[in-house]
Parts: sequence; structure tokens; C-alpha cells
Amino acid sequence: MITCRNRQTLASDNFASTHPKILEALTEANHGHARAYGYDELTAKATARFCEIFESEVQTYFVFNGTGANVLALGACTKRFGAVLCPASAHINVDECGAPEWQLGIKLLPIATPEGKLLPAQITPHLHAMDSEHHSRPCAISISQSSELGTLYSTGEIAALAEVAHQHGLYLHVDGARIANSVAASNTSLKKMLVETHVDVISFGGTKNGMMYGEAVVFLNKSLGQEIKFMRKQSMQLASKMRFISAQFLALFEDELWLKNAAHANKMAKLLQQKLETRQNLKIIYPVEANAVFVQMPKTLIHTLKQELFFWTWDEEQNIARLMTSFDTTPEELHHFVSKCE
Amino acid sequence: MITCRNRQTLASDNFASTHPKILEALTEANHGHARAYGYDELTAKATARFCEIFESEVQTYFVFNGTGANVLALGACTKRFGAVLCPASAHINVDECGAPEWQLGIKLLPIATPEGKLLPAQITPHLHAMDSEHHSRPCAISISQSSELGTLYSTGEIAALAEVAHQHGLYLHVDGARIANSVAASNTSLKKMLVETHVDVISFGGTKNGMMYGEAVVFLNKSLGQEIKFMRKQSMQLASKMRFISAQFLALFEDELWLKNAAHANKMAKLLQQKLETRQNLKIIYPVEANAVFVQMPKTLIHTLKQELFFWTWDEEQNIARLMTSFDTTPEELHHFVSKCE
Amino acid sequence: MITCRNRQTLASDNFASTHPKILEALTEANHGHARAYGYDELTAKATARFCEIFESEVQTYFVFNGTGANVLALGACTKRFGAVLCPASAHINVDECGAPEWQLGIKLLPIATPEGKLLPAQITPHLHAMDSEHHSRPCAISISQSSELGTLYSTGEIAALAEVAHQHGLYLHVDGARIANSVAASNTSLKKMLVETHVDVISFGGTKNGMMYGEAVVFLNKSLGQEIKFMRKQSMQLASKMRFISAQFLALFEDELWLKNAAHANKMAKLLQQKLETRQNLKIIYPVEANAVFVQMPKTLIHTLKQELFFWTWDEEQNIARLMTSFDTTPEELHHFVSKCE
Amino acid sequence: MITCRNRQTLASDNFASTHPKILEALTEANHGHARAYGYDELTAKATARFCEIFESEVQTYFVFNGTGANVLALGACTKRFGAVLCPASAHINVDECGAPEWQLGIKLLPIATPEGKLLPAQITPHLHAMDSEHHSRPCAISISQSSELGTLYSTGEIAALAEVAHQHGLYLHVDGARIANSVAASNTSLKKMLVETHVDVISFGGTKNGMMYGEAVVFLNKSLGQEIKFMRKQSMQLASKMRFISAQFLALFEDELWLKNAAHANKMAKLLQQKLETRQNLKIIYPVEANAVFVQMPKTLIHTLKQELFFWTWDEEQNIARLMTSFDTTPEELHHFVSKCE
Repeated sequence: MITCRNRQTLASDNFASTHPKILEALTEANHGHARAYGYDELTAKATARFCEIFESEVQTYFVFNGTGANVLALGACTKRFGAVLCPASAHINVDECGAPEWQLGIKLLPIATPEGKLLPAQITPHLHAMDSEHHSRPCAISISQSSELGTLYSTGEIAALAEVAHQHGLYLHVDGARIANSVAASNTSLKKMLVETHVDVISFGGTKNGMMYGEAVVFLNKSLGQEIKFMRKQSMQLASKMRFISAQFLALFEDELWLKNAAHANKMAKLLQQKLETRQNLKIIYPVEANAVFVQMPKTLIHTLKQELFFWTWDEEQNIARLMTSFDTTPEELHHFVSKCE
Repeated sequence: MITCRNRQTLASDNFASTHPKILEALTEANHGHARAYGYDELTAKATARFCEIFESEVQTYFVFNGTGANVLALGACTKRFGAVLCPASAHINVDECGAPEWQLGIKLLPIATPEGKLLPAQITPHLHAMDSEHHSRPCAISISQSSELGTLYSTGEIAALAEVAHQHGLYLHVDGARIANSVAASNTSLKKMLVETHVDVISFGGTKNGMMYGEAVVFLNKSLGQEIKFMRKQSMQLASKMRFISAQFLALFEDELWLKNAAHANKMAKLLQQKLETRQNLKIIYPVEANAVFVQMPKTLIHTLKQELFFWTWDEEQNIARLMTSFDTTPEELHHFVSKCE
Repeated sequence: MITCRNRQTLASDNFASTHPKILEALTEANHGHARAYGYDELTAKATARFCEIFESEVQTYFVFNGTGANVLALGACTKRFGAVLCPASAHINVDECGAPEWQLGIKLLPIATPEGKLLPAQITPHLHAMDSEHHSRPCAISISQSSELGTLYSTGEIAALAEVAHQHGLYLHVDGARIANSVAASNTSLKKMLVETHVDVISFGGTKNGMMYGEAVVFLNKSLGQEIKFMRKQSMQLASKMRFISAQFLALFEDELWLKNAAHANKMAKLLQQKLETRQNLKIIYPVEANAVFVQMPKTLIHTLKQELFFWTWDEEQNIARLMTSFDTTPEELHHFVSKCE
Repeated sequence: MITCRNRQTLASDNFASTHPKILEALTEANHGHARAYGYDELTAKATARFCEIFESEVQTYFVFNGTGANVLALGACTKRFGAVLCPASAHINVDECGAPEWQLGIKLLPIATPEGKLLPAQITPHLHAMDSEHHSRPCAISISQSSELGTLYSTGEIAALAEVAHQHGLYLHVDGARIANSVAASNTSLKKMLVETHVDVISFGGTKNGMMYGEAVVFLNKSLGQEIKFMRKQSMQLASKMRFISAQFLALFEDELWLKNAAHANKMAKLLQQKLETRQNLKIIYPVEANAVFVQMPKTLIHTLKQELFFWTWDEEQNIARLMTSFDTTPEELHHFVSKCE
């Protein structure tokens, strides 16, 4: 186990701390006994709040972490012999230690994408022979908003994917670990981005946006989520003292903290981009649309930087680093990082 | 969803709040960025602390909840075609929505036990034909300390189970969701109760003893835990901001808070027992050795009490209620409950 | 690996050979190319034949073996978080190496039964709290006809189980590895025993009744089997040259060979019972209603017999041997066996 | 269900019948009782015969079908959190309805390959970060010999893959559904192709080479197969009357029938290739090295041919047909097919 002594503020948005207002809410929630496993008043309030935020009658289930949210969402969408189409770069495909396959027995069908975004035209070749028992049957499309490469789907692009999905009897799942960054960056609302485009289910991120722990599975398609509570328990995602997740979400939605946190992170990413673009030896690889900046740099520079700074090399062969900003990133930190990029 | 408006202090130790010192520790842990997924300094410190508490070179992995701890522990103990012997009343058998079967594909072999405790003589009939491929092969024995019925295994009883397990190539797992209550109630230490008796792996409870969330899988048998980190991730039990679980455990071990919390709960259970025993219409069913009291009462009384108080009926047919005390139970609450038992 | 040199004709009905007429059918089926995976003419004919035999519009899927049939049937009946109620002695619980748990992730809820038969009154205590996510949800009842102990359910008993199942939203599955013996022994038909009693799905045995290999999953409840073909492939039970299973079933149904084979085996069991009952040192344990005889005998006698004869000791502690007759058992073999029982 | 009335001799080698000598062997094996589940004398003889054929102390387990063989082999190679590297065109990836994921919970890592063959250079990029719990850990490489595209690995190519596998702690599995065609086509032996190249485990095909049903999992690496018998039972691949699979393999190895059958099929493929190459409107796509011919043809021609002939379109977009020859393909059939290709 290697602990990290270096400055690490651009490594990941889950290296960040808990937002002070979230912590405050935890303290406030901490009095007396409350019914366990989500049958408490704060949870009732928090799930109701989700309906307001989505401006729709959504069904919301709190879980511990993002992989848990994704697996439950996909579990609701798939049959035992199901397959899920996703970008090859998807978190579910690359960074969850095979949890979807392990938990659900399903197959992922990864598709190479230029900028982390799946297009309808890439889906249809996989929808031949849907009734042949020799192949796993595609049951869902899963996309990340924002994508793993920091890019955004437009509302129209999401609607188009939902349309092709529904035409063929598939569901559309959105891994929204950074959905707040996406909404903040687009000139839109959750309703317009996800409800009106006919997304079926979303993994709604909390931890990367200032929470201590906790995510939500939000069903926009009411028929999907009916038995998810059993799968949540069985998949070990049912918190006994759930009020403490609920309290965090309530605080996150108070005064639009969720959007403020995300907007700040996005702004810092743009600023970082601008600063990096001044360097001749660096190259921004993907459009910077949310809170991630992917930058190609000389191998030796990566090595030198890592002596002092902690960040992830996304592509070892192409020498591409991933830099993430978060709700607590400061301009000084960006300045410090860029100043080292010589 | 039914929220609970009644007084509910004896319903469960996971209805309790978070101990103030735990909450304080969360606040203190909340500054700056820290490496995610357990590669932070607090986690290094907390896992080292477990070695001190156990007075042994244990390997510790933090997880979100008790079912997660149990499943990971059993996963380390079992082969794909494995079976686990456990009391029929075991939490893994009754209260985890089939998570062990679902997650691991293993088979539980439940054994009827008079007071929730498994004896070596009950094990051996299941160890015939261990090499026959027609039957799931027993790979582990799993017991709960304290048991689901609030009783305790003596050190000798645990050692005897470990011996029969190891003689036949099985491992011994202890579901220690209430291990603190067990240690506090016995005149012993973790080392004497678990290490010197040759237990292989323990699910070490935090949430029911005053934490907000978080449990630990503690491997006493070093060869067992080597690949558990992959299973933790795959089973969706890997917290990104793990420092906040670690901080809680560190606080729990500070000034023996874990034992103080548990001892208080135990004391309240004894007091409750004494008070209930004064009532002619009630009958204590199992020895009160930790923080649970099982009491048989007239069906009508259960009905009347539930108008005002929230607690679980353990056995609907025998009219047995389970009453749990916790670190924050007060004598007044006990008095109030018993006063209603007329 | 221990090969068997002893006489073994009462060991099991799957020690028996292939009936000559079945072998003949295999030879006849063996000309030219035929479409694989069940899309051939013989398979179409054989599945249609099942409708005739059941006098009902059943849906039939051929598989390789009995465990395969049981798992597919249960897979159709259960959700991911499902449980199946069955006698503790059920083949699915005891003799399939945990295949249902492994394949489906479900939980079996074994119930102790006096003579291998489940009664409605034993079911209902398990149907509390069906909506609680803490427990696996019962989705099906599974019984064996004939039972693992050689006893038979009456038509009324089956209908009663189906009724309690359906009242609570469960399905009723019949493991019919020896369904032919059951029909032959009862004064009834498949229609009366299974269709009119509202059984949902049956594992229809072939191998133990004279086939070389091959069983069938027969859905009486049409809505259940719709996607089973995917599960059959995924569970590795889809034969490429399926015509050779189909040909066997067609031969088995020709001139009522299936009933003749079974009736002979049943008759031999009755004869064996009569012979054994003449011995003072032996005790028949269960009613002999199909083709199994369970006999308690002195431990030393078991030991002596096994020097020369091969059979299974069902209960090592009670010294109970299981003797199975089959389509090719001869009175001489019974006589020989009993003559040794001194 | 669509049965096939057209001529279909080039559709697949599993559309073929059973070789007469195999059928004869089934008849000979059919006398008296024999111990079930592989503990019979024929099975002992057949598994010993595999050692002779491989000229090595291999461990052999008979199963029902090819997917069963592949899944058991991969199950022996992988941990619960394991991944298997394979060509994107691999049967395990494309044509087994997700059985490996479903049965084992593992992840397949498909790699695009020009001619169905995996090269060491394609493996190494996937072997970074083997100790990171965020990714499924590669445990095995799986290749098909002959490949799904009818091409062959040279002995040197197999040895090179085994070397890269073993250097990184992975195993090498060979899907040998058509291993006989491969050995017959190469100037080599099983020993030289698989044992001396250090392959760990092979799925040894029987059905596509003239058997009625039955395949074998052959462990060349002795340490791998030790517990496979449990997985075979659990995965529903354990035949009760196993002697009938064993008898087929014994017949297949008699007088080198396995190689004769395969050599004939290979010869017919070469002949077909020659005939097709005379047509200007057709294009052979991959080297014809075993018993498959992939031919690109005008879309209209595919349509016309399918009026009368049954064969599979491999690539709907590229208009590529797959034509398979088998042990019973005749020159007349080839002539007939090609005569229609105008």
C-alpha cells in the first residue's frame, strides 16, 4: 500500500474532501434513533426532493458507491442472458473490476469511440439476430454523462440514443457520476437532459461532487425500478443508517449546492485548459466540456511532475495524463501545476 | 415505505445515532485531498491500529456494511463449489436476501440450533463424502459472536469449532457485527477470543457500535486475505473516500470507546432483563449475554405495545419480541418500555 | 477413480443401459445433415409429441441431463433474488453440487419432510414478509414426483400445493426425473397428474427410464417458458446434434414404451419389497410406491453385501440402504440380492 | 422454430450425422449395468487413451458440449475476479450466449484480430496494472485452433503465446472444437502442437468430428484440473451414463478415425476453395487452412443461393458466407454448390 505524500489536487474528484455544508448536515441528522434501512423520515424527504429536482415522478434508491449504482441500474435493465452496449472507455467496462459481469452475469459489448461518446450508428450493427440464443441479447445502452473523457452529450444526442434503444426494446442507462458537472456545463435542466430525452435510469453521483459517500439510482422509467430494493440488499448496497446518506443529498440540493460545486469544478477545468494551452510542449486531447482535462505531454515531463505531484496517466503508451478538477480546486493549484510543466 | 413516528429505541442497535466522538473524527479528517480507495494515510494508520487491538499481525480491509464484510470473508474461505455450515438463525442465512448465494454462488447448509450456537457435534455429520462431486463441498463454518439470539460462545467453544474446522480443511469465520459486545461481556480480549482460538477471519462490526457506516474484514489467517482487495472492488464494497471509514475506526479505538459503548449496551440489556422478569406475563427466552433480550409476551400485548413503540417481532408464531439495546440506550427508556408491559 | 467390478443392478436406475428400441431410433435418425441446435425436423416432431402425451399445448425444451432440466425450470420461475421451497431431501438440494445456487444465485429453503413429500402446511410459515428486502423472496415450490424417497404425491396433494403456490404468487415445479414411474404407478395420466393440477413446469426424465442421455423441460404454464432458449444455451444445455435426443424421446413414446419401462421397474420394486419383508433383520422404511426401496439393515450386513454387490447407503448413521429398480431389472437379480441378506 | 428443408451440407460441421463407427461403438457399449457418472470401466479406458494420444500424462474430463468444455477449462484457469484475453471472433466471445460471464462471472477482453489469430504483441498492452483492483485481472489467454476463421496457429505461434502467458502468470487455453482438423492439416502431433508448446488446457472436440455428442477437457498442466470434477457437476456437464461418451471417444481414436475424418473435411475445404476461385464474382477472404471457407459474394447471389441451400452469412454487411466441410462432405455436394454460384 502506497500512501500519498505529494500534492494531489488534480488526481481525481474523489480525492477531494467533504463539502462543509454536507458535514454540517450529517451533524444535524445525528440525534436520536431512526428507523434503519431507509424507512426513516429523512430518506422519505430526500427521495421526494429528487422528484422536485427532476421535475418528475422519479423513483430514487440510495446506495453506497458509483459501481453499486451502475450495477443496480443495469440489473434492472437486463435479463439473465443480457448484454449492455457501452463505450469501450466506460467506467463499467474498464474501472469496476468486472462488477457488472460478476454481479449480474451479463456481458458488456464495448464499442470503440473517438471521444468517449457513443453514437446511434454504432449501436445498430449490434442489434442483428436479437432473437438468436447463441448471442447474449442486448438489453441496454449505457453512456456516461459527462463521458469518461470529459466530453458531453447534447440533449439531442441523448434523445437519439434513447430512440434507437427503445425502438429495439433496449433501455438507456446514464452513468451520472458527474451528472452535476454535465447539467452545470449545459444550458439545461435535469428534466430536459434526462426526462424529456426518455432516459430510463440514471446513476446519480454524490461522492465526486462533495459528499462523503453515497450515490443514488434514479428511475425515470417507473416500470423498471419496482423490485430494485431486493437487488440493493442482495448486492450489499443497503445502508442501515441510511438517514446519513439522505441528509447529505438534502444538503447537496439546498441552495443549489450541487450545481455550484459542479460549476466551480468546470470553471477550474476551463482555466486549467487555458493555462496548459500556453505551453508548446503540451497538447489538449479532448474537448474540455466538464471537469476533466486530458493532456499529452513528454514522457520525461510526466516522470518529473510525478516526483512532486500525484495524478493518473490515462494512456501509458500515448503519454496522456488525466487532470480532474473538483469543487475545492483553487486557481493557485492550477497555477502551481502548470508552472511545473516546463 | 413506512416511516416511523413511534418511539423506537429498543428496535435495533442500527437505529441508533452516530456517537459524538465518531462525528468529531469525521470533521477532523475532512481537510484537503487524500488519495482515494484506501491508499491514504488515515487508512494506513487505522489498519495498523487493528494489529494493536488484536495484538497480532492481522490484515484488515474496510467495507461499507455487514453483509459486505460477511460475503467477502466467506468469499475468501470458499471455492466456487463450496458450502458454508452455519446456524439456521445466522444473519447470512436469514437476513441478507441471499447475498452469499447470489454473490458467491455458494450453498449455505443451515443447522438448527437451540440457542443460536453451533456445536462441533453438529458439524461432523456434514463432513461425510467431502470428495464427492455430487454435493457442495463444505469449506467453512460461520458463527456469529454474539449470536443472533444474544448468546455468547465461550473461548473454549470457539476453539473447539476451529479445531473441527481445521481438521477437515475448513475455515472458521466469525460474524462479529457485535464483536465489541462479546468482548465487553466476556472477561477476555480479542486476542484470547479470536486469535488464540485460531479463528481464520472475522467480520468486525462498527455501525452497530456507534459508527455512521463502515465495517472491517479482519484476516487472522494471513494466507486467506491475499486477493480480497479484488473481491472488495468487484463486490462494490470499496469506498473511494475511504479515509472517512478509517477515521471512524480510529476514533472507536481511542480510549477504548468501542468497549465502553458495548459495555453500556450490555448493561442496559441486563437491566431490561431484570425489569422484564418482574412481569408475570412475560418470559425471557434466551440467556441475556450481550445486548439482546428475547421475550415472549401475549399476542395482544405485542399488538398494544406496537401502537406506541417500534420493535421487531422475531417469531410471529411464538410471539417472541427481540429487544436490542445500544450505546445510547437510557434506563428511562427501559423503564418506559417495561411500564407499558401490563 | 474407482471402477466397479461388482454386481450393481440395484444401485441406481442410471446405472442401467439404453433400451434397445432407443438405440434403434438413434441409428434410424443417423442419416444426412440436419439443422443443428434443435431446428431440425425430428425435434419439431418430438416437441409436438409432447403436446399429445400431455394432452395439452405444452412447450418443450430438450436438455442434456436432469440437473440441467431442474436449473432451467427454476430459472424460469425465479427472480434474481428468489428462493425456492423444497423438501430437504430434494435432489436439487442434496445431489446437484449446489447447481441452483451457482447457476442462478438463488437460495433454496429446505424443509424437513417425513417421507420426502412437502405439504401445504409446511409452506405457509415461509410466506411471511414476502415484501421485505431482507429475505430472499420465495418464487417457487419444487417437489419431486416420485419423491427422492420413492413415495408418490396424490393428484390431490399436487393440486393443493399448486393452489397455495399460486395464491402467493409462486410457481410449482415438479422434478420428474422419475415421472414415468409415477404415472405408471398411479391410475392416472400426465394430464390429470400435472396439467389439471396446475403444475407450472416439469423436468421430464428420460435417462433413468431407458434413454442414453437427454431430459426435457416441459412448460405447462405458457407464459413461463418464453425466454428459456437463451438460458438453455447460456447454461450449456443446448445440444448441437439435438435430433439424437429428439429421436430418443420419439422412441420412448412409441407404443407407450415409457410407461412399460416404468411399470416394469415399479413391479420389480414391489417384488423386492415383498422378498425383503420376509427377512426379520430388515426393515422397509418408506412406502414402496415407485421404483425405490429403502431398507434398514444391520451395519455388518451392509458391509458384507458390499463385498459383492454395489448399492448406495442412503443414511450412514441409520444404516439405510437405497435400492433402485429399473426397466431391465430381473427377478433373478432381486432373488440373488435377497438371498445374500442373511 | 424453422426447420430446414433445403440442402444444408455446407452449413456447419455440427449439421453432420454421427460416423457409423461411432454408432457401432454405442451399440457395443450397451450391455448390462455400469457405474454412473464416469466411474465405469469404459471411461477409465477412454481417459487412459487420451494419455496415449497426447503422449503425455494428461487429465481428461468428459462433458456434453463445447461450451461446457470451454467454460470448465476457463473456470480452472481463472479467479473470481479474472479476465480472459481472446480474439474478438472467439466462439466464447460471440457464440456462447455469454456463458463464460454467466457461469464464472469473469470478464472477456476481446481483441480485434485480422485473421482470427491472436499475437503476443496484442497481449502485452493488457498486462499493465495487473495488481490494481480496479480492473479484472487477466488470468488466461484463450485461442481457437483452428481459429473461428478457419486459420491455423503454427506450433511456434502457440509456443510464443504460452510463453507470454506464463511470463505474466496467465494460463493458455485452446478451444479445440476442431483440434482434429488442425492436427490433420499440420505436419505434427498433439504432443508437438500442444504439450511441447506448453498449452495448459484444451477443449477437445468430438461432436464436430463425427461423434453424436461429447467433448473433453484435457489438462496438460496437472496442477490445474484438480478440482474440476466439482465444477463439472455444478455446471451440469456431468453425464450419468458417461460410458456412452467414453465409448465414442474410444471409437474415434481407433485406427486414427479422428484424423481420417478431419483430413477428409480439410481436403473437401481445399477442393471447395479451388472451385470457388474459378468464379470471378467470388472472393475467398481468409487462408483456407482447416475445414472452413469464407467467401465474399454478391448480396443477390447469397439471396438466390439461400432459396435452395442452407448456409450461414458470417458478415451481413460485408456479404461474407461461411462454408464448412465435414467428415461426410462429398465432392458432388461441393460441385452442386459451386454450380449455383453464377
